[in-house]
Amino acid sequence: MLAIGIDIGGTKILGAVVDATGNILSTKKIPSPAQDPDKMVRAVAELIAELAKGAPEEILGVGVAAAGFIDAEQSTILYAPNLNWRNEPLRDRLQASVPFRIVIENDANAAGWAEYKFGAGKGSKDMAMLTLGTGVGGAIIADHKLRRGGFGIGGELGHIRVVQDGLQCGCGRKGCVEQYASGSAVVREAKALVAAGSPLASRLTELSQTPDGLTGMLVYQALLEGDPGAIFLVNQAGGYLGQAMGSITAAIDPQIYVIGGGLSEAGELILAPIREAFLKELPARGFRPEARVVAATFSNQAGVIGAADLARESLG
Amino acid sequence: MLAIGIDIGGTKILGAVVDATGNILSTKKIPSPAQDPDKMVRAVAELIAELAKGAPEEILGVGVAAAGFIDAEQSTILYAPNLNWRNEPLRDRLQASVPFRIVIENDANAAGWAEYKFGAGKGSKDMAMLTLGTGVGGAIIADHKLRRGGFGIGGELGHIRVVQDGLQCGCGRKGCVEQYASGSAVVREAKALVAAGSPLASRLTELSQTPDGLTGMLVYQALLEGDPGAIFLVNQAGGYLGQAMGSITAAIDPQIYVIGGGLSEAGELILAPIREAFLKELPARGFRPEARVVAATFSNQAGVIGAADLARESLG
Repeated sequence: MLAIGIDIGGTKILGAVVDATGNILSTKKIPSPAQDPDKMVRAVAELIAELAKGAPEEILGVGVAAAGFIDAEQSTILYAPNLNWRNEPLRDRLQASVPFRIVIENDANAAGWAEYKFGAGKGSKDMAMLTLGTGVGGAIIADHKLRRGGFGIGGELGHIRVVQDGLQCGCGRKGCVEQYASGSAVVREAKALVAAGSPLASRLTELSQTPDGLTGMLVYQALLEGDPGAIFLVNQAGGYLGQAMGSITAAIDPQIYVIGGGLSEAGELILAPIREAFLKELPARGFRPEARVVAATFSNQAGVIGAADLARESLG
Repeated sequence: MLAIGIDIGGTKILGAVVDATGNILSTKKIPSPAQDPDKMVRAVAELIAELAKGAPEEILGVGVAAAGFIDAEQSTILYAPNLNWRNEPLRDRLQASVPFRIVIENDANAAGWAEYKFGAGKGSKDMAMLTLGTGVGGAIIADHKLRRGGFGIGGELGHIRVVQDGLQCGCGRKGCVEQYASGSAVVREAKALVAAGSPLASRLTELSQTPDGLTGMLVYQALLEGDPGAIFLVNQAGGYLGQAMGSITAAIDPQIYVIGGGLSEAGELILAPIREAFLKELPARGFRPEARVVAATFSNQAGVIGAADLARESLG
């Protein structure tokens, strides 16, 4: 049997038909009407219908991943800072216009499950995933299962605090690692370097054209060129992430950290400073095994693969 | 069948015979030769023999709880800052002179399990325990099981960092919540208040007699009298703990926090500031269920009850 995975992002929605071994058989991508829940429901329902067109009788169910806090029943999006949703009963609304059974999943949980089951975390017993994109997403696999927490909102590792009274976060706290180690944070800090006329910012200033013109892609370009400013920024972000991982390890002690999301495309340029900071912050270092820190396998397809497989697990 | 629980502390060792419903049938307490592993093994073996004297054939096994990082096989104490043990193969050494099967468990894990199974956390699915004593211990119950992590060292919630570049911790990190919210931290801060001649310290100064004479019991006495200095200190410790709980909730989202250890004897005087700080630091507050924060049921017997029951689970 096949399952459909849907990954709702702030700018696009990706859908895929996925088989039981995690292989993607077909995909389709559409723009995301992120600010309008009504349009979103229609868009996702149509996307599902298109994906199922060939062989609807082979579809076991649909997993829908979205960036937000999902309730324990996996039906309502309690809070989604980037999607303008509050207490949105997404499953029931979708179910009304979709002929397959649906489960809702946090997008980082879905990505983490894909990496655990089919990707970089395969074979581990305890894994943590961190996705470095617009925000910092997280997922926890403990004793071979995705752990969603008592109210369904566990694994929000981007909201581990690294700075007391630090930058305001969209979750309401201050100083969450998301504000220091996400792709958005790197771009914000890059713009600050340029605005300050830092000697580190000369290449970034060339690339930015307008004072506010820097993007993640341009910083990435500078990084690949070996620009010291870009390297400084990525080291800084990786350092904060490693600090958060010290606390995450104290709590859940994973055997492996899988790093995904846009920033992870930088490979060892980001993994090396993460590892360095993490080892410095490892409780009882020298008297304990150390978790491996590796790049994710599936890039931006992890969400649809994991959402489809979790739907299969939960509905099969 | 019965099980024996042993709780090795820095100053004393408590042993108990425990039945399947968590009732203690008999106990015995001896001094702890904390600095000498050889004497410790002999002392624990003799304690077990004494406890089993009445009816050795009814003893299913022995759970030994100790404050330290225990390996995934539950046999070796990797690192125990307060017990002067490094890579100590405690299970095998004890097994050589004890006729019952033995498992080793982190003491806070044992206490957390007792509270989950028989005490304040009974009926929950996801629980976190924090024990405020010499250090800050922790335990995580997720989906009804004690989660020890990939290398056996999970649930070390005292080593969640609350202050970047903060006070040096015995684990090697800086700024761990253990340095701010343990009983020892409260006494350290009380001494600092007295030494500084703070106006808040007048009652504490009276009680301390010598400049360095304050103890946890004296601070507790001042607290019960309603002394503003003692209240200030407990609020401060509770505030830091609540901040750590914000990060713990982001990661594992427990339904309930059980607060144990010496400091928790202060009841609402410590629980109220913990709750207040926790709610302030709760990601997505207002759009999510809030965990309850309650006092532990078993006081200093939680370790032996939990160690005995975990031995029963693992050996039964």
